[in-house]
Amino acid sequence: MTRLSRLLAPTLREDPADAEVASHRLMVRAGMIRQVARGIYDLLPLGLRAVRRVETIVREEMDRADAQEILMPAVIPAELWRESGRWDQYGPELLRLRDRYDRDFCFGPTHEEVVTDLVRREIRSYRELPKNLYQIQVKFRDEIRPRFGLMRGREFLMKDAYSFHADADDARREYQNMFDTYTRIFERCGLTFRAVEAGTGAIGGSLSHEFQVLAASGEDAIVSGNRCGYAANVEKAEVRAAPAPSAASAPLERVATPGKRSVEEVSAFLGLPPERFIKTLLYRTAGGEVVAVLVRGDHEASGTKVQAALGGEPLTLADEEEVERATGAPVGFAGPVGLRVRIVADASLRGVRGAVTGANRGDEHLVNVDQERDLPALAFADLRQARAADVCPRCAEGAFAEHRGIEVGQVFYLGTKYSEAMRATFLGADGRERPIEMGCYGIGITRTVAAAIEQHHDDAGIIWPAPVAPYGAHVVPVSMEDAKLRETAEQLAAALDGAGVDALLDDRAERPGVKFKDADLIGLPVRLTVGPRALARGCVELKPRGAQDVVEVPVGEAAARTAALVGPR
Amino acid sequence: MTRLSRLLAPTLREDPADAEVASHRLMVRAGMIRQVARGIYDLLPLGLRAVRRVETIVREEMDRADAQEILMPAVIPAELWRESGRWDQYGPELLRLRDRYDRDFCFGPTHEEVVTDLVRREIRSYRELPKNLYQIQVKFRDEIRPRFGLMRGREFLMKDAYSFHADADDARREYQNMFDTYTRIFERCGLTFRAVEAGTGAIGGSLSHEFQVLAASGEDAIVSGNRCGYAANVEKAEVRAAPAPSAASAPLERVATPGKRSVEEVSAFLGLPPERFIKTLLYRTAGGEVVAVLVRGDHEASGTKVQAALGGEPLTLADEEEVERATGAPVGFAGPVGLRVRIVADASLRGVRGAVTGANRGDEHLVNVDQERDLPALAFADLRQARAADVCPRCAEGAFAEHRGIEVGQVFYLGTKYSEAMRATFLGADGRERPIEMGCYGIGITRTVAAAIEQHHDDAGIIWPAPVAPYGAHVVPVSMEDAKLRETAEQLAAALDGAGVDALLDDRAERPGVKFKDADLIGLPVRLTVGPRALARGCVELKPRGAQDVVEVPVGEAAARTAALVGPR
Repeated sequence: MTRLSRLLAPTLREDPADAEVASHRLMVRAGMIRQVARGIYDLLPLGLRAVRRVETIVREEMDRADAQEILMPAVIPAELWRESGRWDQYGPELLRLRDRYDRDFCFGPTHEEVVTDLVRREIRSYRELPKNLYQIQVKFRDEIRPRFGLMRGREFLMKDAYSFHADADDARREYQNMFDTYTRIFERCGLTFRAVEAGTGAIGGSLSHEFQVLAASGEDAIVSGNRCGYAANVEKAEVRAAPAPSAASAPLERVATPGKRSVEEVSAFLGLPPERFIKTLLYRTAGGEVVAVLVRGDHEASGTKVQAALGGEPLTLADEEEVERATGAPVGFAGPVGLRVRIVADASLRGVRGAVTGANRGDEHLVNVDQERDLPALAFADLRQARAADVCPRCAEGAFAEHRGIEVGQVFYLGTKYSEAMRATFLGADGRERPIEMGCYGIGITRTVAAAIEQHHDDAGIIWPAPVAPYGAHVVPVSMEDAKLRETAEQLAAALDGAGVDALLDDRAERPGVKFKDADLIGLPVRLTVGPRALARGCVELKPRGAQDVVEVPVGEAAARTAALVGPR
Repeated sequence: MTRLSRLLAPTLREDPADAEVASHRLMVRAGMIRQVARGIYDLLPLGLRAVRRVETIVREEMDRADAQEILMPAVIPAELWRESGRWDQYGPELLRLRDRYDRDFCFGPTHEEVVTDLVRREIRSYRELPKNLYQIQVKFRDEIRPRFGLMRGREFLMKDAYSFHADADDARREYQNMFDTYTRIFERCGLTFRAVEAGTGAIGGSLSHEFQVLAASGEDAIVSGNRCGYAANVEKAEVRAAPAPSAASAPLERVATPGKRSVEEVSAFLGLPPERFIKTLLYRTAGGEVVAVLVRGDHEASGTKVQAALGGEPLTLADEEEVERATGAPVGFAGPVGLRVRIVADASLRGVRGAVTGANRGDEHLVNVDQERDLPALAFADLRQARAADVCPRCAEGAFAEHRGIEVGQVFYLGTKYSEAMRATFLGADGRERPIEMGCYGIGITRTVAAAIEQHHDDAGIIWPAPVAPYGAHVVPVSMEDAKLRETAEQLAAALDGAGVDALLDDRAERPGVKFKDADLIGLPVRLTVGPRALARGCVELKPRGAQDVVEVPVGEAAARTAALVGPR
């Protein structure tokens, strides 16, 4: 039992001015976090308890999956990152620092290099493989725009695991083991989530899934099929190309579109739907080449797919000057016909007829574009973002639904990217030396807590899923003056502890209204109110946080009833 | 049950070249730690388990003492350290860094500023006091010479607690509460330790105790009385001045001491014991003044006491040139008679007669120095280090014994040092605003693990105190080929788990000699050997790690017998 009067849990009536999402707003208001600097927070007792709940679930499931807990340093020597090549690649998100002897270090945002260095020094033979090493540790990523409280902080807690294998098959077996473990972890946390196919980004490797907690405030857009269960980030989801709406062939024609630049403007001006448009996007490669990407007027290009189609180099949108130099026209009038740069088109444009596109001349567009006639040498690829109602590419039967998601975990099959760069090898049964196959697996511990709140709250406050709630029950005596109420509340809190439900006792000298408001805000799974009327009948009032109704239960049964609702702690 | 074959626990037969102390040597050899950079380590599974044991004991006792766990950031904005003044004072041990926006931060070595900032924002009234907030967190101190493995690392785990009070009496009550809590913690860890009076150093405040684990390799020298229990660092321990051995008064005389500089040399040359000498030490203050400090020839000056006696400024020993300028003689011949600098003398020199000292002239000393006659205006203070056989200053009955200690914890009464600098105030019951009274309390978690090994080891390896051992028992089947031995060992390990003793099963295909060597090295409290001869009698061999002898116990009783030896885990 913990007494609220002793706890540093300063609740606020007002929303903090800088909080854009529910978890940020509610964790500040419920006295769970306080900002120290941008993206850097104190975790107060209630917030830390929720974090510890997630940590415990993660640790139990990782141990069950036969992973071993270790602890690597936060401060990492630059040499290791130079070996992998990431010292130069990582950019300003890597917090770099120098020690008193002027040696370079970084505050680790992820630990592939450190763990690969450990393993290459200690593991010699296939007999010592496989190994899965994990840690739960504070990380730092110097985000350009930290925001949303614990959702996108700079300093955060992460569980990161790294596995090592003699061959790719065994690495894939462990990938599935971790996939299943993550599924159990987020199920045990009481969260609704999807495991979606994902890109591999700065970590590298060739296979990856993200675990996305579904919530309207999520920063990621994902699609999932309603038949076979296939789910993916919209940037990454495969799209089954369908023929674009076309018209009968007609001669290519130049039309005046004075001041109309966007698909929406030209569509309205010409009275043709956006599906009939070819949108021309100009990018600049890292090498400085300008390339054109074509997608249908009502589609969005996927940055991930475009980058992969153009060879994997990072791309940026071309600036105004580059667009003018490449097209000879102001921005808004680019089109593929006659354009002398490398062009790649989304597969849905194959064979399109009667399309509209920019004319590479100010205030003019081309109509009746016929791909086979006017753009005969075009290269095609899957370049667009998936969206709701797209046909599922896996089963070809279901349709996609779109969701917003918060990425709380990601699993990667890395192959030999790090082991080759850092010469982490082993001797196989045949006596030959080979690079170790690797996988890596992360869970944002603090972000999972925030995601739980994004998914489970209402206007009055948090509605904790019981497995991650800071305490199981909130005991509210309506007055501490009345000895009978006070003593019953104390006994009830003790009985809850005895029944395995950790109880928070609101022993403050506050009005009942204030106590109820704080109980809703803090959002523990069950509120037990000790008031004079019910108590005259030998009862207390039990209210699950998500429920509308209060039930009266006999004092002697309240602890057991609560334990049944809250589950094992 | 954990299978050693699955664990990353690479044991070594050879001592690492750079390891100067037992804990460093044995933790590396037992596969518990690996160095990543100087003073920066990976904690491998066995090492981390010992760390977690200490953490758990610390957390349980801090919670029992009504402290609340929080988690503050590792990366701290410089502004807070500028407010307290420590940004400029702390020196190069503070790891400073800049974020992507070029703002100054440090990697927190201690968190007085962050917690004081939190409390000043959230606490308004005496009704919200007292509070004791603690965290268990990774810290960084950029030591000039990191060494001894986890004993003096740069990155380490620490429990730091900070308490806040309405008045000094309540702060002292909590100081005692924490003193008692620390005593319980180190007792529960199974360590022999002394709580000693200590200086307050860079943390500040006016009252402090260090908790010193006794071990021959300890960096600190401490004394403790054998009657009243008074104990202190030798630098800090009060000394009861006793009159110096004197001779009858005789005329001051200059004697030739060609090439004899040290007390030892002159003592041997003149045939007079070191107790009859006055040693003259020249220091330079921060302001550049040269001052002389006098102690008896067989005593050592305490830097802490000298600094306090001279006003608290940092002091350094004067260099050769400064000595020559102040005394007119080469180094080794300084003496107080006729010396024109500020002089302060240890209290034991009061009234001394017949003493020997330098003559401020090369190759000459003075004999028959009579303090009252030759140094009449001398200032006295307690300036020397305590040592064995000194009379206890508290009870005036017991005698001091000297020990070496490893500082694993320290408690401080801070007063209002931080709250005044940072304006952390509260409104008292009388409506007046006052600075909050504070205390702070630290435990080196990783260092406690190392100290346990320094105190408990032999030539063969670690001898873990059971409460902090990574596992409770080490089960060694002498062969994994023999199905009966293997199965018995598996069943025994499972029975141990059932009896509440976490077991490590050595399931490797190694020779018995290798397994026994590793078991001694890893040092778990009880080794259970499953071999053919004892098993033919239905028995296994039980050997406590510290004991010489093996006892045969029936297989069915082995788990319970082990549990009784190891205690609750």
